[in-house]
Amino acid sequence: MKKTISLEQGNGGREMTELLGSILNGLYRGDNWKNFTNDSATFTLANKETLFFTTDSFVVNPIKFPGANIGHLAVCGTINDLVVMGADPIGLSLSLIIEEGFDMQILDEIIESINKISKEENIPIVTGDTKVMEKGSLDKIVINVSGIGIAKRIIDEKITKNDTIIISGGIGEHGVALLSQRFDFQTHIISDSKPLYSEMKKIREIIKFAKDPTRGGIAAVLNEIAKDKNLEIELDEKSIPIKSEVKTATNLLGLDPYELANEGRVIVIAKEENAKKVLEELKKFNEMASIIGEVKKENTTGKVILKTSLGSRILQMPSGKIVPRIC
Amino acid sequence: MKKTISLEQGNGGREMTELLGSILNGLYRGDNWKNFTNDSATFTLANKETLFFTTDSFVVNPIKFPGANIGHLAVCGTINDLVVMGADPIGLSLSLIIEEGFDMQILDEIIESINKISKEENIPIVTGDTKVMEKGSLDKIVINVSGIGIAKRIIDEKITKNDTIIISGGIGEHGVALLSQRFDFQTHIISDSKPLYSEMKKIREIIKFAKDPTRGGIAAVLNEIAKDKNLEIELDEKSIPIKSEVKTATNLLGLDPYELANEGRVIVIAKEENAKKVLEELKKFNEMASIIGEVKKENTTGKVILKTSLGSRILQMPSGKIVPRIC
Repeated sequence: MKKTISLEQGNGGREMTELLGSILNGLYRGDNWKNFTNDSATFTLANKETLFFTTDSFVVNPIKFPGANIGHLAVCGTINDLVVMGADPIGLSLSLIIEEGFDMQILDEIIESINKISKEENIPIVTGDTKVMEKGSLDKIVINVSGIGIAKRIIDEKITKNDTIIISGGIGEHGVALLSQRFDFQTHIISDSKPLYSEMKKIREIIKFAKDPTRGGIAAVLNEIAKDKNLEIELDEKSIPIKSEVKTATNLLGLDPYELANEGRVIVIAKEENAKKVLEELKKFNEMASIIGEVKKENTTGKVILKTSLGSRILQMPSGKIVPRIC
Repeated sequence: MKKTISLEQGNGGREMTELLGSILNGLYRGDNWKNFTNDSATFTLANKETLFFTTDSFVVNPIKFPGANIGHLAVCGTINDLVVMGADPIGLSLSLIIEEGFDMQILDEIIESINKISKEENIPIVTGDTKVMEKGSLDKIVINVSGIGIAKRIIDEKITKNDTIIISGGIGEHGVALLSQRFDFQTHIISDSKPLYSEMKKIREIIKFAKDPTRGGIAAVLNEIAKDKNLEIELDEKSIPIKSEVKTATNLLGLDPYELANEGRVIVIAKEENAKKVLEELKKFNEMASIIGEVKKENTTGKVILKTSLGSRILQMPSGKIVPRIC
């Protein structure tokens, strides 16, 4: 029996889901909230609109990497947890936990990144907190961004056989950008960290479900969906968009791009008849957006199958081997 | 010019207020939120009720101390930020950042504390997140609890001359309980960490303002109020409730009990004619509740004066000398 916390419990895969589940599922729930196990919980307001609430802490290492930094990541991550549910984010909180001796100029850069996205997306940071820990008791900085949103409609329709699975762009780019810094290799890949609010506004009326594949990558998210909703999902490997530099880097590092974190991608499930329209909208933002698979069976044991040029294999829920502090 | 973050910037006093202010005040605010500088921001819902949103991270060291632990503190702290504004908390988020190797049994204890308060107060934890950092990169555990609440009325009336200042119990108990662990001295004092929701429900209709004196103690909170609202506040030193063991301990440690953190006390400002009723209600929860002073002048330079047996002195905003990681 495990008696201490392991690094695997932060991996975005099976061990993390188990830890978070064992904590959240044991807690008092009250009567008014739903969607405890999703990334954002929902509460019905007096006027029948739905209030969404989400939280995410960021411990990414290094704190700056090609294309983004920890602040950018934090604000995008929390916005995305809200928008994939169909919510309009109305306000974010910002809590900074900083190591004594932290460089003020880097702090300013981080805050500037946060503020830029906040302004562009018209989603204000409305409340905050700062804590300082003695030198040596925290590795640089941790950022928590919590967020609330309001929606008329929650995107969570019943997923059925023949529904189409779409991704909004190439996978694994955040992971590779981050690892290029950590292992000091050259690449043109930059983190895909970005808010998905504009994309979601274009497609949210015509889709059944959406989720951003962050920690644990598309392997984790699709397995979660398959398991939660009792679906057999089939992916067509050759249609999963991956930049060749991402492929090369993951091959070299011995990592699976399907398990690598994305910070500005969304997996969308839509009726077959809406799939083309969804794809068309998503391609306006990223030309690598692609239909990657479909729901093969419903009311079955959750499973994700990857059709490859050699046949097919099960795409497993990531477990064990991990990239720590990827977000 | 300061180029790196100092421990003083986490002290709850002047340096922290400046850091947090310089960050929050520079951020994009949108059009729909108010009360950015308070511990919780407010948003007017379609039905004219007010939504409150707050966040707080806890880095207390040690993580267990007489009367409470980091989880207890975190959930009470966030509940209190909401209830002092007049809100009914409707849901909390829980984000755990944990060091690899952290003892699962202690984690269970922490979660149990959180869940017990959540149940008793009927305020569910509705969404969560866990992150794990490698051994050595975080000192044990940091907890963020954000929270949302709804109120019909915000407690924020104009404070005027002759208004009465009341505190809900003895001061400095959290600080002394914590320091007794850190410096290994014996005391019967336990942390005052507790949710203030029951107290606030009894008095919120008949008060003008309330605030919990956490980091920086009553010295910080009263100076903030005096400065923000341009008031001269006069306190009567002999009426400020302090347990004798707290006095002894702070004398020994060379600390000022007025600057020590409280985690289950509220400073209330009420019309003179309501003060007795407020005190009576607060005494039902803690017999040390006391009227400690009054507003002497309005429309003036913010100032807090302490009347002592020897005359009077200015009670300064705490600054510099600090107790790090007190909450």
